[in-house]
Amino acid sequence: MLPDTFPCELVSWERSCTLARRLAYAVRDSGYQPDFVVAIGRGGYVPARVVCDYLLHQMLTSIKIEHWGVAAEERPETVIRFPLSVDVAGARLLVVDDVTDTGDTLTEAVSYLTGCDASEVRTAVLQHKNTSGYLPDYYAELITEWRWIIYPWAVYEDLSGFVLRVLTAGPATAGGVAAALAENFSITVDDEMLSEICGGLVSRGEAEETGGVLRRAD
Amino acid sequence: MLPDTFPCELVSWERSCTLARRLAYAVRDSGYQPDFVVAIGRGGYVPARVVCDYLLHQMLTSIKIEHWGVAAEERPETVIRFPLSVDVAGARLLVVDDVTDTGDTLTEAVSYLTGCDASEVRTAVLQHKNTSGYLPDYYAELITEWRWIIYPWAVYEDLSGFVLRVLTAGPATAGGVAAALAENFSITVDDEMLSEICGGLVSRGEAEETGGVLRRAD
Repeated sequence: MLPDTFPCELVSWERSCTLARRLAYAVRDSGYQPDFVVAIGRGGYVPARVVCDYLLHQMLTSIKIEHWGVAAEERPETVIRFPLSVDVAGARLLVVDDVTDTGDTLTEAVSYLTGCDASEVRTAVLQHKNTSGYLPDYYAELITEWRWIIYPWAVYEDLSGFVLRVLTAGPATAGGVAAALAENFSITVDDEMLSEICGGLVSRGEAEETGGVLRRAD
Repeated sequence: MLPDTFPCELVSWERSCTLARRLAYAVRDSGYQPDFVVAIGRGGYVPARVVCDYLLHQMLTSIKIEHWGVAAEERPETVIRFPLSVDVAGARLLVVDDVTDTGDTLTEAVSYLTGCDASEVRTAVLQHKNTSGYLPDYYAELITEWRWIIYPWAVYEDLSGFVLRVLTAGPATAGGVAAALAENFSITVDDEMLSEICGGLVSRGEAEETGGVLRRAD
């Protein structure tokens, strides 16, 4: 369970691409030549695609791993939601994800793919948190001060969740939401994006708006 | 077969994301609620991930479609290289790719997915060229003046190919390559990226460099 307030980092597209390029070169310079690159869905799709570009690698596929929380206080269970669709027996794999947080995702991925009789499974992430229980083979950046990373391919979903968190504490104007995002999560979001996110919450019935004041729907 | 010179467009990350967001909203506003989003590998990975963000969609999977040219003058044959790994019988699918060029990829994808007994298959691309033989259900931008689109997730591979094309015409300095890219393909590339690409060609043995002059390796 995450606490009520914690630091976040919004990563730009350019920065994400720079990290992915660095990751690709780390793989290349290590001499590892994977037969397949396996993106972890959904977070690994963009990094894996960019890594394939810089490795000039064609054989990109994906699996999807989900985390099921049985109860809020328990550690979620990790399951393979969409398996591989290709025979990787005897093949060298490079598994790509965006970040190691708990490390559960990559632990599960490696266990699953090893069970598919891959000859070698190596893992690569853009950012590795040293709080993770799993150490990937390659990472572009080490994060030693824990923060929640918001990647540009998840910005809408993540920020929608953060705005709902803010509204859980009580109704707020758009300005109040922006101030709370900055204070509680060190997130600076421009007016247009915030308006888009709040509009989405209202249209999906997750929040209500009256006279410029947003409140969480029951 | 592409001619020796033709116009290109380098699309930025920000622009690609704007197009993907617009695409997601077009799907949402149409009322279509897919059960699964299917990224076409490799070009659809980034657009599909961003579309899923703005649709708050979890069920992202992928297939890979390849084009095999039997001979240079023949139209390449399209095959499913990595099939689906999930049962989509009775499901509504949203297929996402970056661009329709000939339209062969989406034609093949729809044929394959319909054969998997999906109840409905709709297609979405960032940019639809009106020269395409396939009309997607959704697109963020219509391209009426044909050009080759270079997306940021394929920039290294695409530009490596363009530099090799330039060197096929004869040896050139880095400045000469940059000038030819601009003249023949309307591509402006910064020195750092060009240096990285030329270095890659040399290290892979596809080009040789002597006294600042690059030539294509035999």
